[in-house]
Amino acid sequence: MLDEIDLVFATRVGETLRERGETLAVAESCTGGLLGGALTAVSGASDYFDAGLTTYAYDAKRRHLGVSREALDDHGAVSDPVAREMARGVRDVTDSTWGLSVTGVAGPTGGSEETPVGTVFVGVAYAGPWGSGTSYAAVERHQFDGDREAIRTQTVETALADLLVHLERSPPDGRE
Amino acid sequence: MLDEIDLVFATRVGETLRERGETLAVAESCTGGLLGGALTAVSGASDYFDAGLTTYAYDAKRRHLGVSREALDDHGAVSDPVAREMARGVRDVTDSTWGLSVTGVAGPTGGSEETPVGTVFVGVAYAGPWGSGTSYAAVERHQFDGDREAIRTQTVETALADLLVHLERSPPDGRE
Repeated sequence: MLDEIDLVFATRVGETLRERGETLAVAESCTGGLLGGALTAVSGASDYFDAGLTTYAYDAKRRHLGVSREALDDHGAVSDPVAREMARGVRDVTDSTWGLSVTGVAGPTGGSEETPVGTVFVGVAYAGPWGSGTSYAAVERHQFDGDREAIRTQTVETALADLLVHLERSPPDGRE
Repeated sequence: MLDEIDLVFATRVGETLRERGETLAVAESCTGGLLGGALTAVSGASDYFDAGLTTYAYDAKRRHLGVSREALDDHGAVSDPVAREMARGVRDVTDSTWGLSVTGVAGPTGGSEETPVGTVFVGVAYAGPWGSGTSYAAVERHQFDGDREAIRTQTVETALADLLVHLERSPPDGRE
């Protein structure tokens, strides 16, 4: 199911979070839980991995992550605004330092002209100390090739790689 | 990571749920999201799969699933009562027909005399129509061998097999 997944990113994310004393929660859609599955393939992940919320249905995104009807209605579930709200939402409902989200079209059905099969948005949200004004969220859009399994595998690896970029440039005591 | 996983159970669970017009949500601990990952490896899973809540940390079980402090304190996170409350909790917070939960010790650390590495509890909760008195939850205890990956793979397959037993004996219009 995920035999090609490279756990090097999950391992590096874990090491970095442990060093920084920070925690992570994930919000997934098209990957259905595989992102959390990859993170917890590393023994000792409970030191930094708090929770994963797989909000597969439209309503689940509203209920469990507080994604707005406006974002869903105006932009669709596979969009920059929804990825951003998912990342912020999972960071905040779980009280984690970092929120990482993925929403995409794994196929083979569900694609459109605007968001063809293989379109994936990755959201990264960081919680700075209260009052520091350093909290932020960022989104990257990716386009992957291949079948459902290949797209989901690339999504997991890329999301972790995207998070690493943020982890490595954000100082442990908050963002510059 | 999960190359050995047999998706025959995920496929059969999906077909059965679709036939019955019922929905499923999962609550995971030691599998970290892989159960949801297996269910959504099947295209079209959004017809019956609503959400997955991976409550890896102690507090996440309370916050997102309503698992009681009493169950956690008196029996520990890897226990029959916690698996039962997780299955009921995820069924009810997501308003799904079925809730499926797993909590276990994937190892290599974390085992005890009472719950050695490889101990896994699978909870299945069903929602009957309001007032019908047919809602129920059941738990099975399993003991698996092997390394972390092998234990997690067996947990996913066994949880889906356990759910199938319930799906196949419960009439579509509620339990006898």
